[in-house]
Amino acid sequence: MVEVVTFGEAMLRLSPPADGRLETTPQFDVTVGGSESNVAALASRLGRDAIWLSKLPDDPLGRRVAGQLRRDGVEPVVCWSDEGRVGTYYLESGDPPRGTDVVYDRAGSAVTTVQPGDLDTETVESAEVFHTSGITPALSDATAQTTAQLLSIASQSGTTVSFDLNYRSKLWSHAEARDTLEPLLADVDLLFAPRRDTESILGIDAAAQEMARHLAGTYGIETVVVTMGGDGALALHEGECYEQSVYPASDRRPIGTGDAFVGGFLAALVETDDLDTALSWGAAAAALKRSIPGDIATITPDEVREVIDGATPDISR
Amino acid sequence: MVEVVTFGEAMLRLSPPADGRLETTPQFDVTVGGSESNVAALASRLGRDAIWLSKLPDDPLGRRVAGQLRRDGVEPVVCWSDEGRVGTYYLESGDPPRGTDVVYDRAGSAVTTVQPGDLDTETVESAEVFHTSGITPALSDATAQTTAQLLSIASQSGTTVSFDLNYRSKLWSHAEARDTLEPLLADVDLLFAPRRDTESILGIDAAAQEMARHLAGTYGIETVVVTMGGDGALALHEGECYEQSVYPASDRRPIGTGDAFVGGFLAALVETDDLDTALSWGAAAAALKRSIPGDIATITPDEVREVIDGATPDISR
Amino acid sequence: MVEVVTFGEAMLRLSPPADGRLETTPQFDVTVGGSESNVAALASRLGRDAIWLSKLPDDPLGRRVAGQLRRDGVEPVVCWSDEGRVGTYYLESGDPPRGTDVVYDRAGSAVTTVQPGDLDTETVESAEVFHTSGITPALSDATAQTTAQLLSIASQSGTTVSFDLNYRSKLWSHAEARDTLEPLLADVDLLFAPRRDTESILGIDAAAQEMARHLAGTYGIETVVVTMGGDGALALHEGECYEQSVYPASDRRPIGTGDAFVGGFLAALVETDDLDTALSWGAAAAALKRSIPGDIATITPDEVREVIDGATPDISR
Amino acid sequence: MVEVVTFGEAMLRLSPPADGRLETTPQFDVTVGGSESNVAALASRLGRDAIWLSKLPDDPLGRRVAGQLRRDGVEPVVCWSDEGRVGTYYLESGDPPRGTDVVYDRAGSAVTTVQPGDLDTETVESAEVFHTSGITPALSDATAQTTAQLLSIASQSGTTVSFDLNYRSKLWSHAEARDTLEPLLADVDLLFAPRRDTESILGIDAAAQEMARHLAGTYGIETVVVTMGGDGALALHEGECYEQSVYPASDRRPIGTGDAFVGGFLAALVETDDLDTALSWGAAAAALKRSIPGDIATITPDEVREVIDGATPDISR
Amino acid sequence: MVEVVTFGEAMLRLSPPADGRLETTPQFDVTVGGSESNVAALASRLGRDAIWLSKLPDDPLGRRVAGQLRRDGVEPVVCWSDEGRVGTYYLESGDPPRGTDVVYDRAGSAVTTVQPGDLDTETVESAEVFHTSGITPALSDATAQTTAQLLSIASQSGTTVSFDLNYRSKLWSHAEARDTLEPLLADVDLLFAPRRDTESILGIDAAAQEMARHLAGTYGIETVVVTMGGDGALALHEGECYEQSVYPASDRRPIGTGDAFVGGFLAALVETDDLDTALSWGAAAAALKRSIPGDIATITPDEVREVIDGATPDISR
Amino acid sequence: MVEVVTFGEAMLRLSPPADGRLETTPQFDVTVGGSESNVAALASRLGRDAIWLSKLPDDPLGRRVAGQLRRDGVEPVVCWSDEGRVGTYYLESGDPPRGTDVVYDRAGSAVTTVQPGDLDTETVESAEVFHTSGITPALSDATAQTTAQLLSIASQSGTTVSFDLNYRSKLWSHAEARDTLEPLLADVDLLFAPRRDTESILGIDAAAQEMARHLAGTYGIETVVVTMGGDGALALHEGECYEQSVYPASDRRPIGTGDAFVGGFLAALVETDDLDTALSWGAAAAALKRSIPGDIATITPDEVREVIDGATPDISR
Repeated sequence: MVEVVTFGEAMLRLSPPADGRLETTPQFDVTVGGSESNVAALASRLGRDAIWLSKLPDDPLGRRVAGQLRRDGVEPVVCWSDEGRVGTYYLESGDPPRGTDVVYDRAGSAVTTVQPGDLDTETVESAEVFHTSGITPALSDATAQTTAQLLSIASQSGTTVSFDLNYRSKLWSHAEARDTLEPLLADVDLLFAPRRDTESILGIDAAAQEMARHLAGTYGIETVVVTMGGDGALALHEGECYEQSVYPASDRRPIGTGDAFVGGFLAALVETDDLDTALSWGAAAAALKRSIPGDIATITPDEVREVIDGATPDISR
Repeated sequence: MVEVVTFGEAMLRLSPPADGRLETTPQFDVTVGGSESNVAALASRLGRDAIWLSKLPDDPLGRRVAGQLRRDGVEPVVCWSDEGRVGTYYLESGDPPRGTDVVYDRAGSAVTTVQPGDLDTETVESAEVFHTSGITPALSDATAQTTAQLLSIASQSGTTVSFDLNYRSKLWSHAEARDTLEPLLADVDLLFAPRRDTESILGIDAAAQEMARHLAGTYGIETVVVTMGGDGALALHEGECYEQSVYPASDRRPIGTGDAFVGGFLAALVETDDLDTALSWGAAAAALKRSIPGDIATITPDEVREVIDGATPDISR
Repeated sequence: MVEVVTFGEAMLRLSPPADGRLETTPQFDVTVGGSESNVAALASRLGRDAIWLSKLPDDPLGRRVAGQLRRDGVEPVVCWSDEGRVGTYYLESGDPPRGTDVVYDRAGSAVTTVQPGDLDTETVESAEVFHTSGITPALSDATAQTTAQLLSIASQSGTTVSFDLNYRSKLWSHAEARDTLEPLLADVDLLFAPRRDTESILGIDAAAQEMARHLAGTYGIETVVVTMGGDGALALHEGECYEQSVYPASDRRPIGTGDAFVGGFLAALVETDDLDTALSWGAAAAALKRSIPGDIATITPDEVREVIDGATPDISR
Repeated sequence: MVEVVTFGEAMLRLSPPADGRLETTPQFDVTVGGSESNVAALASRLGRDAIWLSKLPDDPLGRRVAGQLRRDGVEPVVCWSDEGRVGTYYLESGDPPRGTDVVYDRAGSAVTTVQPGDLDTETVESAEVFHTSGITPALSDATAQTTAQLLSIASQSGTTVSFDLNYRSKLWSHAEARDTLEPLLADVDLLFAPRRDTESILGIDAAAQEMARHLAGTYGIETVVVTMGGDGALALHEGECYEQSVYPASDRRPIGTGDAFVGGFLAALVETDDLDTALSWGAAAAALKRSIPGDIATITPDEVREVIDGATPDISR
Repeated sequence: MVEVVTFGEAMLRLSPPADGRLETTPQFDVTVGGSESNVAALASRLGRDAIWLSKLPDDPLGRRVAGQLRRDGVEPVVCWSDEGRVGTYYLESGDPPRGTDVVYDRAGSAVTTVQPGDLDTETVESAEVFHTSGITPALSDATAQTTAQLLSIASQSGTTVSFDLNYRSKLWSHAEARDTLEPLLADVDLLFAPRRDTESILGIDAAAQEMARHLAGTYGIETVVVTMGGDGALALHEGECYEQSVYPASDRRPIGTGDAFVGGFLAALVETDDLDTALSWGAAAAALKRSIPGDIATITPDEVREVIDGATPDISR
Repeated sequence: MVEVVTFGEAMLRLSPPADGRLETTPQFDVTVGGSESNVAALASRLGRDAIWLSKLPDDPLGRRVAGQLRRDGVEPVVCWSDEGRVGTYYLESGDPPRGTDVVYDRAGSAVTTVQPGDLDTETVESAEVFHTSGITPALSDATAQTTAQLLSIASQSGTTVSFDLNYRSKLWSHAEARDTLEPLLADVDLLFAPRRDTESILGIDAAAQEMARHLAGTYGIETVVVTMGGDGALALHEGECYEQSVYPASDRRPIGTGDAFVGGFLAALVETDDLDTALSWGAAAAALKRSIPGDIATITPDEVREVIDGATPDISR
């Protein structure tokens, strides 16, 4: 039985080294990123078996994506396609007042034509946790339908269904997101609900605890985790509230922080079944991610524990 | 009056430094390339006024393409679009037995929706030479129709119409190419016909001189230049044949060699109106291109002259 | 009619990547910088037609300077010389207590022999604004005389004459600067006066507003802009004062901040003729510059507007 | 049942970029290499299941080695140790008359203390092919004893035992090698015997075919493959000889060529059980390796087929 | 007479550029570092004659170490060995909550077999100051014995004996350190005692001044310098106390800060024989070090003076 | 007594990595080069004591030049100047038909104002060999006069005076060279005479042996070495001829080949006093230089011996 299975798109991430601009940089650093593959990679690095389901073109760039995830311990179970492309995104970041700019170039990627029959649904049935996010159904009608079907398969198999709202304004409107995501929530057991996305998509404007209760009640979700950026996170489970503040961290490299939270949370939850532990691992992984270039939190369990224990970052020699 | 106007797509070119593989390289070198923009850039570098017409997305990558061409002296007259993407292509090269591998990722680029109304057709009317290639109509129905219309406008304005067959098997079949390109040839005054493309698309299987006569006769083209790779080139004009062998060159960096030939040829033709000179400038530019990384032949008139004069490459100090 | 014409020297800028030292770095990043070309590049990027007048050696390094400026949209109208060199400067920066160190190596550059006859003075006559700085007359007697003559031509043609005091202690003494610059101010319509330079060169020791009035009164200058580093800027025009505070910004990359202020100010002034707008564009461009490697503020009008509107730098995706 | 299992050491390989010298290069490229892991990686890339057995320190560098192999599709089944280091080697190469220089720094690596009990010997029992080389027993007494035991286990389980003589003069003398290796050959089913190593270690000085017969006869080996550098290779099986010449290739990047031969050979043999096919895949993989930086032949089955089919390396676009 | 002679190990330092991780970085920056060679290099850069004694393998990496020190003005008087390796260490650093991680790979380095007879002990006898640190005797029995002998030689020759406790927990335990170091202190004239090391090794838990008096009294040391990180430093000499606070500095690049303090202190002491000056030069060098990549403080006397004088780090141009 | 003392200019060498063009490369590799410092560095690397005399500005770039030479074992005895700059040169190279292009930017360098009093002439008097080249007197009147005086001092002190004609057409004309160099030859004991320079400057058009006899006779030179590029070299001493052919080598990296010949020759001559040995060491060093990036032949005596012994460049592992 696999512990964590995720489904989604992983893209090439192209970013200028050293604060350069997309318009003028002579080189791009190349890494791989995608919300659900980031989660799988971190879960694997923290000790869980992890599989990532997707569809990729059978070319060097597709192989690159799969190989990169293997390096972080994920088993990529991929439908190799003769059509479609690898999605790419360009990431530029800089000191304030420049922010972080993302240029998506992901239309027409192979995964946008994915059908349930393309994927190994048995891995979903046998998984302990199945996870995907609101990005995946936003990619195309095909991904929306496949997402719905996988959530349903997972739910019927007794697999814990984990879902991160993860709204992307460059992919769809609030209304489109709501219309597609609301029906999916019926199958969800564990919901990661960024506060801002919850307000904008689901129209729930309330304090975090109230927001969690509203989500749990309205959609019948067993565990709701509301994430609030610098204000920490809160989990609601069987009426009980668990709170977590953030660990001190850099404010650079925000990309992938949310995925690190989810990955750390799931890795700990699967092992300990304890929400306090899961929250602290999520928060510590998110803090560490901000020190790591790339989308994926290439960290170790020991590093997570050191953050939680408040070990001061000194020279170890 | 502008001397040279070209029309087509320019893409980001992403290539691994130092013989790395697309699948594993940690960085990509970023340059800009496209057959018609390469021609315009070289013509400009060799002293001609040059304008490049195209459509680009109004984002950092679109600005990068335009800025890069400006650096080489081309005036990019661009329709800035809120939709579409910058086409990209991935280039990998290595020692034999590895060859040069191109992964196109150009579907859905902004130029595929170009309409004649998007472009400044007055520049075409007032140009001395208007040039495009068989790549452009291969991109989409819209580019095919716009190409046809620009060729017609140029032809009616007395602008010399230059066309390079430039077949790309990853864009269309031989049959599709023939069906689209043959009607266009009626407006062409100067045809660059790679021998292999001429055989495969137009079905003309003959020695170079015969091939040129066939093309000139069948399509009523004033000047036909048949290019034969390592076997040199041959021009036919008013029944007279002009021949040109290749200059010694590296066998690395083949990308852009054909465009360098056309750019060198046009630059010299506009200035001297002499076919022998044009052929030798084309051949010398093509030889030099093989020493230059990137798509564009960033060379100078003096370097072209030194190649033609057979000056030995020694240290100049 | 060209909107902005500037005159001055642009140099190669060689700087160690990643906080390295000039003494030991194995590589230099190469960019192009010069006060007046920086101003022209930013004005162009913000939508103005911009021409830069100068003299460069006809070699690859001279072509590099011109090409780089073309990339940023400037038309370099250059006297190409067989003599002289491209000026260079070495820039090293690091965390405190290391500061920013500049090693000038600009003696004998081609521009130091420039004569008015080398330049296309018609562009000055037909410009909306002509801009240069106190650096240019400091380079040589020839540049001092040519500067004087161009200012005079501009003034007589009704072109707005813009001047930035821009004192460089490595080029001349306070006394030399005063003796050369004071006579030039008679032709100036718009003066950028860094507070510290005004004190040290012109001996005016007063609060900013008083300083501006003194400058306007003594030299008969229509508009005086006193810049005060972290204390913001102040403009005086027809007796009225306009104030501008700084926008939050990094304290890295100070080089080119002043030029970004001038470029943003001029770009907005030419378009809107409104001093408040000009001041805010200048201040916003200066803030953004501190996030950009290199001398030139490679920014966009939208980015300037976002800084002025106080849009928080968040991830846009 | 796993198809290919290998056992040995994988090291960090540190090499100066761009022909630099170990003594002066400011940077090292970092890759991972080791004869048996190279073989496993290529076998995996060509479609076989592959496991690599070894012992590594539980630190970032150990994780790097394992992660890198996973990227190439190998499952690293590793004994993670709190003691010992990752072996490293420094590789410098350059144009003639400089050759390729290797500085080994592998003493005290974790694998030198490996015991059979550290490893998952069940994978050896269930493998189709078990492969190691003469490098492994040269590392330490412990590796020599563990190698002997694994060969014995494999032999008794019906697993095909593959062995590459792979003499390294910096690790041991000819006499030491002979004394250790000869007893091991009793368990070997498939021997890769570089001609030069066979002469120097085993003292067999004969033409290739004779050498193969001698090896097969003396040590009772079912299949013997004699490799002869530029002179190709020859296999002897049940008295029958199979010959293979080399494919044209660069003379750069010799490191890993022998491993690419073995990996290609094994990958094809497991799939087809045909010695002619195995030889041609070995030779083609070796030729391709010479175009690939790093130790591992990051190639695809299609590329191997193209070399065998003699497809000319042209631009594919 | 040489002014400063130091004895110890210098290693290759391999570190990922740009905040990368040891596990995944594609390149390492290569520099040279070692506590005593760092001290010698800075002393030399600040104007003292400096010799570094050690043992290195006679290979490109050994030559690299020697050459690098020569570049910083140190004369490496080295016993070139056919055995042993160059010690290496891997350094990774990143934003909090990641700290600075050091992976030592120095076992078996050539210096661990050093004998007094390998070294030019006459340089020690004729030196003004002989310096080593607690790292050196921690490396092996041989280095411990050689250290003892060199300290004794120096002491008997009237050379000032300088010693830095410099405890490294990855090399030995507190108890081992105490047992080895205490006997050495009898020969020491000038002791650098980091407060934390003094507590943990020598068990002296007291305020700084008390700690210094205790050290001076117990071991009969003429001058004791207690360093206290961000709390500054304190020197005790003939019963008199000299205090020094820290200069403002970055909190990045902590490696080598202590050595910079010692190097700056010794350089000033040898020249001025004034403890206040020595303390301020030590503190200023340590502050500057934090702005410099690598182990060695590649700084100049002028830069030290500017820090002491509180000159604001502004652009000098 | 120092074995080899040289006098001349060393410059920063700035070159694009990876075949890039000066006009467009985003980075320059930085090394140090100069004919006489190249000779000193190689002599030192091959085991001789070597001093280089020159004048440099007291800034980070001047320190860089000195530090770089120290790394290669040369003791730079430098007059540190507050005026003048470090000369630079830009080097671009590429595959044919591009050659090697040098852009000198060395006017106004500190050494152009050197006076004999600036230099430590005692090192010249006590040297075994004093060497300079025709480049040095070409730099300025001051360097010409200082060169003459140093040659005279060396000659009168019994130091062997070595001189390389080394004509640079970008520094002076044939006539100027002849007028300056001919008088200097009176003091020369050992002349390196490139065939082409001898023809063009001294007007001696003859076969190599004849040329050598002519030079020896006309100018009274004890030993004349005529170098003939790919045709090898010939030495004439006391009427006897010694011939040397070239060793196989790359045709890349020609810069510094001549200096490597001289450095290898002098290193061997000083040690063995044997012209055959000196010629073979010169030729082998020149061959090796072509495999080494940068100006300086960073090679070892063993590598020279291997070339002479014809050891095949194989992998040493």
